[in-house]
Amino acid sequence: MNNCNIAEQQNKLAHIMERIVASYDEATPKIHHLDRMPLPSREDAAAIMEALEEIVYPGYYSAGGVTHQGIIYRVQERIGWLFEHLRDQISKGLRHMNLLDGELSLAPDATSEDCAYMFLESLPRLRRRLAEDIQAAYDGDPAAGCIDEIILGYPAVYAITAYRAAHELHRMGVPLLPRMLTELAHSRTGIDIHPGAQIGESFFIDHGTGVVIGETTIIGDNVKLYQGVTLGALSFPKDEKGRLIRGHKRHPTIENDVVIYSGATILGGDTVIGQGSIIGGNVWLMESVPPGSRVAQAEPKPRFLEPHEELQEV
Amino acid sequence: MNNCNIAEQQNKLAHIMERIVASYDEATPKIHHLDRMPLPSREDAAAIMEALEEIVYPGYYSAGGVTHQGIIYRVQERIGWLFEHLRDQISKGLRHMNLLDGELSLAPDATSEDCAYMFLESLPRLRRRLAEDIQAAYDGDPAAGCIDEIILGYPAVYAITAYRAAHELHRMGVPLLPRMLTELAHSRTGIDIHPGAQIGESFFIDHGTGVVIGETTIIGDNVKLYQGVTLGALSFPKDEKGRLIRGHKRHPTIENDVVIYSGATILGGDTVIGQGSIIGGNVWLMESVPPGSRVAQAEPKPRFLEPHEELQEV
Amino acid sequence: MNNCNIAEQQNKLAHIMERIVASYDEATPKIHHLDRMPLPSREDAAAIMEALEEIVYPGYYSAGGVTHQGIIYRVQERIGWLFEHLRDQISKGLRHMNLLDGELSLAPDATSEDCAYMFLESLPRLRRRLAEDIQAAYDGDPAAGCIDEIILGYPAVYAITAYRAAHELHRMGVPLLPRMLTELAHSRTGIDIHPGAQIGESFFIDHGTGVVIGETTIIGDNVKLYQGVTLGALSFPKDEKGRLIRGHKRHPTIENDVVIYSGATILGGDTVIGQGSIIGGNVWLMESVPPGSRVAQAEPKPRFLEPHEELQEV
Repeated sequence: MNNCNIAEQQNKLAHIMERIVASYDEATPKIHHLDRMPLPSREDAAAIMEALEEIVYPGYYSAGGVTHQGIIYRVQERIGWLFEHLRDQISKGLRHMNLLDGELSLAPDATSEDCAYMFLESLPRLRRRLAEDIQAAYDGDPAAGCIDEIILGYPAVYAITAYRAAHELHRMGVPLLPRMLTELAHSRTGIDIHPGAQIGESFFIDHGTGVVIGETTIIGDNVKLYQGVTLGALSFPKDEKGRLIRGHKRHPTIENDVVIYSGATILGGDTVIGQGSIIGGNVWLMESVPPGSRVAQAEPKPRFLEPHEELQEV
Repeated sequence: MNNCNIAEQQNKLAHIMERIVASYDEATPKIHHLDRMPLPSREDAAAIMEALEEIVYPGYYSAGGVTHQGIIYRVQERIGWLFEHLRDQISKGLRHMNLLDGELSLAPDATSEDCAYMFLESLPRLRRRLAEDIQAAYDGDPAAGCIDEIILGYPAVYAITAYRAAHELHRMGVPLLPRMLTELAHSRTGIDIHPGAQIGESFFIDHGTGVVIGETTIIGDNVKLYQGVTLGALSFPKDEKGRLIRGHKRHPTIENDVVIYSGATILGGDTVIGQGSIIGGNVWLMESVPPGSRVAQAEPKPRFLEPHEELQEV
Repeated sequence: MNNCNIAEQQNKLAHIMERIVASYDEATPKIHHLDRMPLPSREDAAAIMEALEEIVYPGYYSAGGVTHQGIIYRVQERIGWLFEHLRDQISKGLRHMNLLDGELSLAPDATSEDCAYMFLESLPRLRRRLAEDIQAAYDGDPAAGCIDEIILGYPAVYAITAYRAAHELHRMGVPLLPRMLTELAHSRTGIDIHPGAQIGESFFIDHGTGVVIGETTIIGDNVKLYQGVTLGALSFPKDEKGRLIRGHKRHPTIENDVVIYSGATILGGDTVIGQGSIIGGNVWLMESVPPGSRVAQAEPKPRFLEPHEELQEV
């Protein structure tokens, strides 16, 4: 299929390669990662999530085998694997942050081992939380046939599992990996939860596509969200040089027992949705509401067009 | 990289493993699957979808080879593979449901074989339906260059193929697998169609991200939806113990020749969108509309802010 | 597990196969691809995206190795691989279009080689553009810890990388592959950008799920979008036979320095959002706005229901 003779093609490609490699030092900002310790990769994050799922929900994966004991052996292997890989990925992230900050940690290895042990020790508690989340899914969705259907297929389970694990790592100060876990879940489920968010017990998201939960959101217990709900920021404060201030509470607080229906948007670090409130679909809120509120859209009644009017919307 | 001596690490991990395994019997509800026949897994569902795609749209996959006869051999192999794996996954699901219900089916194998044959026998009819759906996509989207572009890349094709296959299995009473197929498609396309929904001919969803079609929705022929459309439920009836009633018609009926534009929400089991209606973008409907209606949002005109007013939205 | 004897099963399956294969020539439109040169496949498109990512963002992938030189060797291998596979996929697409049009190109190979070289030669410029897009992400998102976090995990990076590559191929007249690259990104990120759209510099999409950017959209520099934004079409002109006219400008123009918040919808080929405008969340626009406009929703104030009123929304 190749009319060019091979030498000419090699020559052309060699020149192209030179120019591409030259561009590595030219582009601003730098978008390569050379001469550094390797960073966590997307494949690493995905492998960690898989191991975590097998440990948290044993027996739901083909590799689990048939007998109780067989699955236990598998889980033990997975815990050992997870310890090593988590330690390595945490270590990569910590070295990276140290280099960014200009200091070289004296013993990053000890710290990453501590984090890895701490994370594994948190798993029994994590499992109890996730069991409650799954119960909330069953109680809140008439379309759910059984608990297994929820574990096997509901996007909320994957997204909330990833979030709770990522949040645990985030609280320990692990860089990069938490956000990679939640963005992996975002890609798979359409649910975007920042690892910094604080979410209580028995949390359920039905359908899920389009949900956004910002970095400084606080959510209580027994909260249920539907697809397309945004818990977002209201204006971004900047410093005197016009740069964004990072870390400031920008996202709302949702108290216990709140239901937020599809497409609703709640914005602002000072916005509090009071306990037991129900926020209707497509509602837009930038101010707090007291406990027990029931809030609907401003004008739910659509217009029927006369024959001469054009329905221009596409 | 490891400062702990190996024995100390093994000891620590062994203790962690014990506590995790102990948590399996503690968490409520139970979120493990041990001492049971294996369940269908996500990988099983994905492999079944792949085989189905190769059979329904032969020649679009690298493994299809170049000659007509080569592809035919491949398809024959895939049909044999699909029969065996479908039979096995259906059998796993049926055994699981029997155990949940407390009865052990006398001959679950016969039933799963019957289902597998029935499903394969439905494929010619399924292909005719999907061909009509793809024609509807071409007729309805000016951005489509040719039929192949639609088959190779449109999210609607993947989602509707998964739905029509899942619906066939759902009608036969197959548990678990139908929902796993549609949640797989939901993950890949952002389109969430419950296998219980009833959808007519020549169905098209453009763009698709965020579409939700509930379990008891009925959709006629020649219906076109855009991204973000919800065909959802309006209140969940509960029994005298406060538990959700499952199965009740909760989702709307969309008659033939209806177009529903982006972001519209239609709710309620008694809500009927009459034949030939056009529902504009972002419309919110909880009541029926007669045939031939053209419905727009209540207040489409946005406000231009004066210089002194704050645009607080972020 | 199999009650049927093997011969009976083979017989039954053989009949099923015959009917399925017979359906290949019966379904209308044709949804098989036999007796033709192979088309680009989804796996091909995914492999091309992976190679492209390793070349554009070297060092972020496990296979990148540890040393600067090791990564350079890897990149050189990837450029050679990309040249061959791009040439082959482009060739498949060109032959396919030629057959569709009824002409057989005299030397499709030369043309596909030219395209492949041209694409690789554009990579330094592409990288500069993507570096600016990533800077825009960092400047525009308070939740971003560092540039690496953005490259490793932000859906906007994947979607915009796929779009800029696909747009380059689209401008050269390459069929099929551009759309397959952007639909791959759509599947992974929920961001749907047609390769025909024209997008300027320093472009950022935060969160992203549900964004739709149509084929004939024009976007300027320093534009920022949030999740759920639609830049869509307003009515589809048809010819005298009632068929859609393809290619006509149907999507809006967004000038420099515009911010469009979550869920906003801008429609129409003549609609221009003037430079420096801010479009608030959930705004619906079908008409142009002058430069410097700040546009909010019509009625942002939701209604608080009295105890006797029903909140019917679910």
